[in-house]
Amino acid sequence: MESLQRTKFSAVQYKLENAPSFSVGKKFQLDDVIESQQFDRDILGAIFEVTLEMEKTEKDSLGSQILKGYLMATLFYELSTRTRLSFEFAMKRLGGEVLTTETTWEFSSVAKGETLEDTKRIIEGYSDIIVMWHFESGAAKRVAVTAGIPIINGGDGLGQHPTQALLDVYTIEREVGKLDGIKVGLVGDLANGRTVRSLAYLLAKYQDVKIFFVSPDAVKMKDDIKDHLTSKGVEWEESADLMEMASKCDVVYQTRIQKERFGERIDQYEEARGKYIVDQNVLDVMQKHAVVMHPLPRLDEIVVDVDWDPRAAYFRQAKNGQYIRMALLKLLLVGW
Amino acid sequence: MESLQRTKFSAVQYKLENAPSFSVGKKFQLDDVIESQQFDRDILGAIFEVTLEMEKTEKDSLGSQILKGYLMATLFYELSTRTRLSFEFAMKRLGGEVLTTETTWEFSSVAKGETLEDTKRIIEGYSDIIVMWHFESGAAKRVAVTAGIPIINGGDGLGQHPTQALLDVYTIEREVGKLDGIKVGLVGDLANGRTVRSLAYLLAKYQDVKIFFVSPDAVKMKDDIKDHLTSKGVEWEESADLMEMASKCDVVYQTRIQKERFGERIDQYEEARGKYIVDQNVLDVMQKHAVVMHPLPRLDEIVVDVDWDPRAAYFRQAKNGQYIRMALLKLLLVGW
Amino acid sequence: MESLQRTKFSAVQYKLENAPSFSVGKKFQLDDVIESQQFDRDILGAIFEVTLEMEKTEKDSLGSQILKGYLMATLFYELSTRTRLSFEFAMKRLGGEVLTTETTWEFSSVAKGETLEDTKRIIEGYSDIIVMWHFESGAAKRVAVTAGIPIINGGDGLGQHPTQALLDVYTIEREVGKLDGIKVGLVGDLANGRTVRSLAYLLAKYQDVKIFFVSPDAVKMKDDIKDHLTSKGVEWEESADLMEMASKCDVVYQTRIQKERFGERIDQYEEARGKYIVDQNVLDVMQKHAVVMHPLPRLDEIVVDVDWDPRAAYFRQAKNGQYIRMALLKLLLVGW
Repeated sequence: MESLQRTKFSAVQYKLENAPSFSVGKKFQLDDVIESQQFDRDILGAIFEVTLEMEKTEKDSLGSQILKGYLMATLFYELSTRTRLSFEFAMKRLGGEVLTTETTWEFSSVAKGETLEDTKRIIEGYSDIIVMWHFESGAAKRVAVTAGIPIINGGDGLGQHPTQALLDVYTIEREVGKLDGIKVGLVGDLANGRTVRSLAYLLAKYQDVKIFFVSPDAVKMKDDIKDHLTSKGVEWEESADLMEMASKCDVVYQTRIQKERFGERIDQYEEARGKYIVDQNVLDVMQKHAVVMHPLPRLDEIVVDVDWDPRAAYFRQAKNGQYIRMALLKLLLVGW
Repeated sequence: MESLQRTKFSAVQYKLENAPSFSVGKKFQLDDVIESQQFDRDILGAIFEVTLEMEKTEKDSLGSQILKGYLMATLFYELSTRTRLSFEFAMKRLGGEVLTTETTWEFSSVAKGETLEDTKRIIEGYSDIIVMWHFESGAAKRVAVTAGIPIINGGDGLGQHPTQALLDVYTIEREVGKLDGIKVGLVGDLANGRTVRSLAYLLAKYQDVKIFFVSPDAVKMKDDIKDHLTSKGVEWEESADLMEMASKCDVVYQTRIQKERFGERIDQYEEARGKYIVDQNVLDVMQKHAVVMHPLPRLDEIVVDVDWDPRAAYFRQAKNGQYIRMALLKLLLVGW
Repeated sequence: MESLQRTKFSAVQYKLENAPSFSVGKKFQLDDVIESQQFDRDILGAIFEVTLEMEKTEKDSLGSQILKGYLMATLFYELSTRTRLSFEFAMKRLGGEVLTTETTWEFSSVAKGETLEDTKRIIEGYSDIIVMWHFESGAAKRVAVTAGIPIINGGDGLGQHPTQALLDVYTIEREVGKLDGIKVGLVGDLANGRTVRSLAYLLAKYQDVKIFFVSPDAVKMKDDIKDHLTSKGVEWEESADLMEMASKCDVVYQTRIQKERFGERIDQYEEARGKYIVDQNVLDVMQKHAVVMHPLPRLDEIVVDVDWDPRAAYFRQAKNGQYIRMALLKLLLVGW
């Protein structure tokens, strides 16, 4: 169930600004959600359309029952309560049920030496869809190859976190109203943050995008992403001036400096951490329509006062994660 | 959502012995459940009436579906399996769904330094109501101030445990048939047990109540509660004679001597622990209509043989906790 | 609720090859599931008939709603994620709800010294049925004696694991098509594996069964089971030749050599572990209709290549565990 399949696309009209339309009469269904690379503009557009539907359903009522009778299992080899809860919420809001296995590494069977493949075969027997979170890059892909049911990669190691990438792009579209022609400033830990790496990757699928990188020297964006952007014709620029960048951008995407990446180098961490803070001064130079985003949790890289500004989009962004996950569950289990 | 609000009281007739009636045509709805102090006699009466309905529903059938589509999240910063299960049972019996987060302190986000306020904002996005359990006194109140959804304080630190207090008062009414004129003996660890402190506090709202304190010297009831009772005109008495007290009371409320409060002073703990035991001798002097209560878990402060006496009300008391929680969830989510 | 009760047996016709029929007009209902010994051929046959129904329901649809409104609590004093998930799956697929308490030993109440009996009385108030997993042999039986609701023994210490035994026998019947006249080879750790002990015990209820024991010297089948088989007229044989046994049997039942049983004796463990491996060579001598079973998890005692052979029945066997548990929940909660 590795590649995307499109059959029996429904008569629902799918339109996203500048997106080529799907041919009517085909059903759109996802097989697995493994990595950002699997999505093209059309598929992103289709997912976002279903996501918007979910957002409306959720706001108008207490969810729906379209996934009634379906069971989702969570197979988490690392603790990520927030991602797990977001998926459980999404499943339950659509009438589905959840088997929770948050601490899969404590499974007696795993502790006894069972392979990931065997564990997957068992859990697969307990559920209609599996959400995985594994410490090893590529684990979700490996599992999906032989799985008889859809697999969602909740996150794997330093590799992919595709649902975060989707919700980020969805949020930009919802908040700014467009993706083509967008100016996005990525701030903070750009070396280790898989969020900003995936986002840069996905933004490259749109037209006339410009990306600014603002980060302490110790955690600069790596060359692979820069090269990818260049190859796709995306303009990018490194900058040490948060204020100047903030005044130009549609989106200021702040991230947490991850202490755990610095090890013994506490000095470097403290220096990096204090360097680029989003506060009232930053808000003051930002455009009226621009927004501040953050994958959360945040420490003090966005000061709490910023929360009250309508341009503080990060809690709305977190909420969008639920609509994205509702949409993915629907597309994976019952299609469009 | 801090204060209690009463609007559009329904036509349901609300009567509790001696309670002033609510004006017909107003809906009764709770906003949050934070501390015992928020309840007056009227509100207690209204809650107990709904609780009695819940008890009947539960005994006649397999619950109802009045909370279908609603999601409750549990946000527990300390382990309290029993309280968590009781709330989950209550929610599920009313057709609602639960997102379980028993060990919130292990949240990756919390471990990374996220504030309680930010965690709340995220969890709030996942649910329609939050049950909190926090080690810090006042935490629930702090969270409720800014929450967009109802907050129930499952317990916070040495502070409040309001649902326990409610179920205790409800149990006394159910078992003895009245609250005014009641004689209650509080036994055991009166210094540290927040249960007995809250109970004393709530009982002061009723007429002609008399309270006896029977405790080892090391863990006597503190002056703040004694002063409060005095100020409210509640008669109270300290006694070293369990038997004499037991012969007079309607309720013998036993509590566990909490070893963890004694630290190194094991001798004192052992002495305190063995001093006041409820056994057959105590039952022999108790009146026929009187009952033994205990917040549970118990060690040997009530001997197991007592369980078989119909006056042993502690397991019924535990069960009442579920009806109380069902009533609160109903009142908080859909009102009366 | 200790003994089995049969009343108001429904008009459903119950037939199992060679089994005496139940009298029509009686309802078949289980009270508790505590140990393999409680089942006779008739009851096994009745359970398997319901299990087959469950298997069909599950394959034709997304389960049923026959347990809607019922709550199952899991009371696990040892971690057994797989068994817990299997029961939760079973309950949810039948429309029931679950209160999860996976790590009962961490209960604040248990940590404070509460007895198993008191904990049971509380949990019983939260649910309609309890699935227990306890480290102490006989714990489930002790609890069931006084429980007001059905108890299922998920496993207790080195004692019983009755649902595993039932699913094993069911799998043999489903895979081979008969139980009388069957030839079963038990391989691996026969001294410590309660699975093979229970299976041998249950097989003794059928006619003309022959059992082969193939195990390293350190972990041979104990005399109590051998004596029991002899007393029941079951033929058995110890063999050191896996290949010869495999060529004769209908079922090759492989088990994991349990490292934790060898303690310091790593050499013995390594020798025992490598001795009897099911691989292509074993498949080559097995009959076409014969199957390989394993209670899982497996390490390398069955090589992964064997998975692709249609005679590899162990993942189907694991799946049967769910149908068995669905059947038991139905029989315990609503009867036949």
